[in-house]
Amino acid sequence: MHPLVSSLPFCVIAGPCSIESYEVLTQVARTIQDLGVTALRGGIYKMRTNPESFQGLGESAYSIVAQVKQELGLSLVSEVTDVRQIKGLSEVADVLQVGTRNMYNYELLKELGKQEKPVLLKRGLSAYLEEWLQAANYVIQGGNSRVMLCERGIRTFERETRNTLDLAAVPILKSKVNYPILVDPSHGTGRKDLVLPMALAAAAAGADGLLIEVHPNPEKALSDGAQALDLFELEDLMKRLRTLLPALGRRLSDPGIPFFSSL
Amino acid sequence: MHPLVSSLPFCVIAGPCSIESYEVLTQVARTIQDLGVTALRGGIYKMRTNPESFQGLGESAYSIVAQVKQELGLSLVSEVTDVRQIKGLSEVADVLQVGTRNMYNYELLKELGKQEKPVLLKRGLSAYLEEWLQAANYVIQGGNSRVMLCERGIRTFERETRNTLDLAAVPILKSKVNYPILVDPSHGTGRKDLVLPMALAAAAAGADGLLIEVHPNPEKALSDGAQALDLFELEDLMKRLRTLLPALGRRLSDPGIPFFSSL
Amino acid sequence: MHPLVSSLPFCVIAGPCSIESYEVLTQVARTIQDLGVTALRGGIYKMRTNPESFQGLGESAYSIVAQVKQELGLSLVSEVTDVRQIKGLSEVADVLQVGTRNMYNYELLKELGKQEKPVLLKRGLSAYLEEWLQAANYVIQGGNSRVMLCERGIRTFERETRNTLDLAAVPILKSKVNYPILVDPSHGTGRKDLVLPMALAAAAAGADGLLIEVHPNPEKALSDGAQALDLFELEDLMKRLRTLLPALGRRLSDPGIPFFSSL
Amino acid sequence: MHPLVSSLPFCVIAGPCSIESYEVLTQVARTIQDLGVTALRGGIYKMRTNPESFQGLGESAYSIVAQVKQELGLSLVSEVTDVRQIKGLSEVADVLQVGTRNMYNYELLKELGKQEKPVLLKRGLSAYLEEWLQAANYVIQGGNSRVMLCERGIRTFERETRNTLDLAAVPILKSKVNYPILVDPSHGTGRKDLVLPMALAAAAAGADGLLIEVHPNPEKALSDGAQALDLFELEDLMKRLRTLLPALGRRLSDPGIPFFSSL
Repeated sequence: MHPLVSSLPFCVIAGPCSIESYEVLTQVARTIQDLGVTALRGGIYKMRTNPESFQGLGESAYSIVAQVKQELGLSLVSEVTDVRQIKGLSEVADVLQVGTRNMYNYELLKELGKQEKPVLLKRGLSAYLEEWLQAANYVIQGGNSRVMLCERGIRTFERETRNTLDLAAVPILKSKVNYPILVDPSHGTGRKDLVLPMALAAAAAGADGLLIEVHPNPEKALSDGAQALDLFELEDLMKRLRTLLPALGRRLSDPGIPFFSSL
Repeated sequence: MHPLVSSLPFCVIAGPCSIESYEVLTQVARTIQDLGVTALRGGIYKMRTNPESFQGLGESAYSIVAQVKQELGLSLVSEVTDVRQIKGLSEVADVLQVGTRNMYNYELLKELGKQEKPVLLKRGLSAYLEEWLQAANYVIQGGNSRVMLCERGIRTFERETRNTLDLAAVPILKSKVNYPILVDPSHGTGRKDLVLPMALAAAAAGADGLLIEVHPNPEKALSDGAQALDLFELEDLMKRLRTLLPALGRRLSDPGIPFFSSL
Repeated sequence: MHPLVSSLPFCVIAGPCSIESYEVLTQVARTIQDLGVTALRGGIYKMRTNPESFQGLGESAYSIVAQVKQELGLSLVSEVTDVRQIKGLSEVADVLQVGTRNMYNYELLKELGKQEKPVLLKRGLSAYLEEWLQAANYVIQGGNSRVMLCERGIRTFERETRNTLDLAAVPILKSKVNYPILVDPSHGTGRKDLVLPMALAAAAAGADGLLIEVHPNPEKALSDGAQALDLFELEDLMKRLRTLLPALGRRLSDPGIPFFSSL
Repeated sequence: MHPLVSSLPFCVIAGPCSIESYEVLTQVARTIQDLGVTALRGGIYKMRTNPESFQGLGESAYSIVAQVKQELGLSLVSEVTDVRQIKGLSEVADVLQVGTRNMYNYELLKELGKQEKPVLLKRGLSAYLEEWLQAANYVIQGGNSRVMLCERGIRTFERETRNTLDLAAVPILKSKVNYPILVDPSHGTGRKDLVLPMALAAAAAGADGLLIEVHPNPEKALSDGAQALDLFELEDLMKRLRTLLPALGRRLSDPGIPFFSSL
């Protein structure tokens, strides 16, 4: 089967870099629901280079998430940064994300292999594709086969973008494994003006879905504002995807847990 | 204007890495003409890493090209590797290509600035976008404004592909300059199985055209066979482009000199 | 003060990639002691890309280490790969090493900030110097100021070596911070034939010490044999360092806990 | 023979990035002569990214060079950027340098293969060692075996330095070929504060010589001032080399044409 032909419906996961407050989260979540986005993303525990940067709300975000999920019925993808967070985070998140800085954190991956929640594993900053697949094997070998991979840009000499989005990774991975392959054009470029073209390019390259940073007011975001779309830009992206996907023989997924909703 | 919206018709330039014989060239050229490909590409002077590799037919290809052009009426894009070739090559080529290894060859670029033929300038192996645009300025300042740029992959740590195709370069360049921006997924990946998905991705990212290596029998090509499509694969690519481009609000160019046919 | 002039004595930390058995460890340890090497290194918990590769002896190495240390009185540098290992490992290791794959593991670094043992923090595979210093800040801000940094090669396009040893990092870091700066030419090149020249180069660039992989029989090592020196090659390296260091105005450290032996 | 042991005397080639005037050149040349530097370097034709930057004095520098050489008797290393310059430049330069941007300019290399003057071939910005050696073969196969190679930094993700100086290239090349191997720590780092430590590191790694940018008043240099040593810093470098080289079993070369003075 040609890598471009995939039986998976196309999933869009969108939301703020960090969960900052009930007000911001519910505003984003309502828009996402209106636009037919598959699931919400939002950081509760953040990996920040600078130890003095905002590190996420942590446990105090749990009640915010619980309330928004109850009101709107959305699924949540959120990052786990330490084995000690798994139990608590699993009560509010539907997919546990492993960020680029933890791709080689094999002790964390082993623990996630013992869980039932799907795992979204991002590529390390300069990971070979082979290393990334081996990292996924740490999860698989623990017994959890609900793995999805997400290309999020690699570190190269080029300085115009925060990272270089390696879209060739998509068809290569599709030819090697059966995991859903996502692309994150927000981190993959670090520039909001590049998110739309690279999102469409990812779809055309055969990706099974997107991870998109959105904020009602990107200039005021507590983290990563430079790469977040506002809600109108997200609407435009969804509209263009609805035009593009049929030309690629694909359709947008129904809302729910991405790729593993039937499980 | 959004980088994805371009008034330029989408050009496909396809052909063999090297011009090897009248038989091979005419076979490719007829197929290209049947498929509505915009122009033919073919190397007469080759830049080869190994001094003992096949270096192209050189001047002895001129009569082959002249005959095929007369029979079929196609335009030819061909690479110039030294200032001393410009005069002769201009008699058979409609577009003079500067390869990745010569992007910094400013003396060559200055000479091309004095010509009338359009110049297709490929990105250097590890050139910053800014350096690439400055290289284009060497041509422009000489008086020749018919410049088109071609992203062809950059050198990174990743080893699964020959180069890493940097598609984010497309929308960045579209926001900075008015030159047509092409993408070469053949050199950009070095693998024929990746040419189709990356070609479609390039179009979705907003590229104005493609450079594609094709050979009737890739296994027997004298150079770069691993990345050449065969004629059936080219047909498939053209068919998929005809489905995709309207969903992007674009159409395929008529055959002729790419982008500058009316000049 | 010029970065090349340092009041720190030059430390050499050498030993096997993994601790495999009492026999191998004691053989290496005796040689190290005879040669005046500062401290022993040896992996108890290993980070392996492939989940099916040898992962280190784990807790069962503790008694081996305890016995060798009792017999010979050496200090040990060993890697910690998870917060749950800190307590046990601290009973046998004198310096806790954080490997390249965990440089961004901020939860681990925060825990090490609460410890008294010195921390040897390796540079991430593609970490900017600024990110590395910020990672060190996670340890420092926890209250543990006994940090040493170790350049171990970065990931670049070059394929002849496993990594590209970035020796310019040494004088840059010396001009910014007061931490001892080490260099690991074994991982930094991945080739035993390059260890000696790059070790001498590191010293000449102003490094405060070296991390060297040694094995009595590299061909039989359970991990990383291609980059391990044998014991005769280590002897040659020590001899050359004793000739070189005085010409750089430096001297070899006495055996003990590297850099923080007086604490 | 171990790569660190070389029978070649160690050569230092120093001078301004560009030849700007008789006054500046003679001032540098006298100092160089006093310090026992092997040969003078100085750009007559410059490769500048920006077409509006100073491009070197060109032919009008010939008389300046001729006068300084007559007065002081020094050898000159200077860059050739186009085949049409070879004849003229050969009358004043003793070594013809091919810069990093021309490493893949095979037509230029073929012409240099027909000359008698030694050729100093710098590594391309992101050239594999194998590509570099093949580029040297273009010269060798033309009949000119007087080739020396110069590592000058490669392009990587790291942004603190202009390039990443790949010193492991030195012992690798020494083990493969017999050409003298030089290192350029000025371009290799782009920062004058790093030139001294990286120069010493290059010597310790087994390099056969150095290329150093020097200017009597770096702040006023017409090009590359940020990486040029002033004359006192060059004196300090020479002094430290005289201390270091004997500890490496080597000695400084007598002034003359580097490595090929007896020819």
